[in-house]
Amino acid sequence: MAFKEYLMIPGPTPVPARVLTAMGRQMINHRGPSFSSIIKEIVEGVQWAYQTKNDIIVLTTSGTGGMESSIVNFLSPGDRVLSLNIGAFGNRFAKIAKAYGADVDEVKFERGKAVDLKTVEQKLSADKDKKIKAVLVQQNETSTGVLNDIKSIAELVHKHGALIIVDAVSGLLTAPLKVDEWGLDVVVSGSQKAFMVPPGLAFVSVNKKAWAAHENAKMPRFYFDFKAAMKFAEIGETPWTPAVSIVFGMQEAIRMLKEEGLDNIFARHEKMAKAVRAGLRALGLKLLVEDDKIASRAVTPVFPPEGIEADKLRKVVREKYGVVLAGGQEDLKGKLFRIGHLGYIDKLELLAALAALEIELGTGVKKGAGVAAAEEVLA
Amino acid sequence: MAFKEYLMIPGPTPVPARVLTAMGRQMINHRGPSFSSIIKEIVEGVQWAYQTKNDIIVLTTSGTGGMESSIVNFLSPGDRVLSLNIGAFGNRFAKIAKAYGADVDEVKFERGKAVDLKTVEQKLSADKDKKIKAVLVQQNETSTGVLNDIKSIAELVHKHGALIIVDAVSGLLTAPLKVDEWGLDVVVSGSQKAFMVPPGLAFVSVNKKAWAAHENAKMPRFYFDFKAAMKFAEIGETPWTPAVSIVFGMQEAIRMLKEEGLDNIFARHEKMAKAVRAGLRALGLKLLVEDDKIASRAVTPVFPPEGIEADKLRKVVREKYGVVLAGGQEDLKGKLFRIGHLGYIDKLELLAALAALEIELGTGVKKGAGVAAAEEVLA
Repeated sequence: MAFKEYLMIPGPTPVPARVLTAMGRQMINHRGPSFSSIIKEIVEGVQWAYQTKNDIIVLTTSGTGGMESSIVNFLSPGDRVLSLNIGAFGNRFAKIAKAYGADVDEVKFERGKAVDLKTVEQKLSADKDKKIKAVLVQQNETSTGVLNDIKSIAELVHKHGALIIVDAVSGLLTAPLKVDEWGLDVVVSGSQKAFMVPPGLAFVSVNKKAWAAHENAKMPRFYFDFKAAMKFAEIGETPWTPAVSIVFGMQEAIRMLKEEGLDNIFARHEKMAKAVRAGLRALGLKLLVEDDKIASRAVTPVFPPEGIEADKLRKVVREKYGVVLAGGQEDLKGKLFRIGHLGYIDKLELLAALAALEIELGTGVKKGAGVAAAEEVLA
Repeated sequence: MAFKEYLMIPGPTPVPARVLTAMGRQMINHRGPSFSSIIKEIVEGVQWAYQTKNDIIVLTTSGTGGMESSIVNFLSPGDRVLSLNIGAFGNRFAKIAKAYGADVDEVKFERGKAVDLKTVEQKLSADKDKKIKAVLVQQNETSTGVLNDIKSIAELVHKHGALIIVDAVSGLLTAPLKVDEWGLDVVVSGSQKAFMVPPGLAFVSVNKKAWAAHENAKMPRFYFDFKAAMKFAEIGETPWTPAVSIVFGMQEAIRMLKEEGLDNIFARHEKMAKAVRAGLRALGLKLLVEDDKIASRAVTPVFPPEGIEADKLRKVVREKYGVVLAGGQEDLKGKLFRIGHLGYIDKLELLAALAALEIELGTGVKKGAGVAAAEEVLA
């Protein structure tokens, strides 16, 4: 058995001791003045991370619940929706919309590729009657490790007039997302990713255009209803009892992130992604995403060498070295493994994970080669 | 300002140090073997608390989300539902059902009274065509501090054939709820009440009859879909990333509760309720619920003396003594205050709260009278 654990999955990420300690705080009244001031601090912090002045809805739920809320609050059954699908979370977004009766035009792109802008342009310009009410897209697709060009997609959507609803759960803070400057109508994130907090809270930003759509949105909702949420947000509360401990954790995490600064946070994630890619390539491994420009700063999917099963390799590095990696999802299950490097994961832990792979991959690989290549990037 | 805080609201309850410490544990992979064994331990513990062998669904949500899930998984739009409404949470249950298109027959009982069995019998026997698909009811109504006779209500519902869906969020573990013996089809609870864990998780039990109804239930759902939940429950996982820290807390809390034993937990809550009622009466205060038999073991609503505003009194005892009490809800807002005494609240804290009220209520009240009366019960 391994002595220590290195959690390198794309969320939950490890949580800093400062955040864990903050979460050890005793319960307080979620309808009292102290709690209200914490909620206000968090909302302001999430706005900072989003680079927005839009309203922020705080929900006690997983990222998937946040995704659901970002659909059911702005659409009606029968509404046409364009789903830009580059992986498992694209599938999930489309499935949620379908479950609530949307008429989903699902455009699937090759796994490992980003959304193709020309396809989006064609789809939107072909919609002369403006039937498409919303475009669903991931900033970062966790299953394939691809970063979409949200800025350019948003420009195309603006020309058309539909809402752009962005799942930024795994992407937020790993790469810039300028919610106001890019005019993103609805953006979802979760506590357990680059915020470095345990799972349990989701955050959704809503701009004026989205609030106008909310007025006519008829998909049924209660727990996730944003009108109720907004009424309470004005007094620093949530309509239902929130995950108080996770709120305490968010308060501390936001303070840490602000100390680091947005540009440093983006640079840290960019460097980690570059380093792991250099290391894996030096080990002779094939990446799912060869194009560096669209490579995720949160997670890197990589194929095992010929003759080695991905999930068996994951099991060995977990049991022998304590390095916990993620498997493939959906079509990619068993075919590759994924190294998470977002949130509270340090560059030396990245080297440790590469070292474990190097030792375990055996004779075909030159010992130290992966670590050396990653060190070059990190230096 | 007060030096220490005594949180005496009906949830979140204070959390034992053992539970807070357990929650300080670092994140682990929610798709790995260690986490899976913890989920299995929790499910078994919740079954123990429910006195059931039914399936248990673990959700990352507030109690209200748990209530929503217990409706949308078992009903279709247009289904007739009988809502037995004795307070704010009865209102909420009905509102959720309406939001998803149910045809709700809402029977409101006087605030401070339990569900009247004769009315239920009449309603159900009048439904010759068996249009009523489900009966919604609270075990304990948090807003009015009333305990319903779930066993007798269930017997009436069984004669009719509808599903009985019980909101036991604030009632579970404060008074017996024999899910299997009483044949309760769907039962919801939450982590932040007598489980003594921070908010963030809800638990729903589902029996065979309810699973059969689930097969034909057409209300839209995705995040709260129990088919997805059950598929993952079988391998000790949840479909979406769960609130990992709250799961750690639940594991420890269930161990503590098992050490105490079910009968002792019920007896503790019963004694606390009796003591606070005796104390408040000795102070000359009027209780909303005069009938001891239906009085909640979780929370006691009480009117302030003539000429004193409930919310002003709450503010004073919070600021001067650190005693945090709950206000009235909906129609009762501003009219009364509520003392929470479920979960991790100790008998001496109850005396402390009574003492603070005694000091503050001033000349009309004999100092020590309330504490003395409560001590008599606790002795």
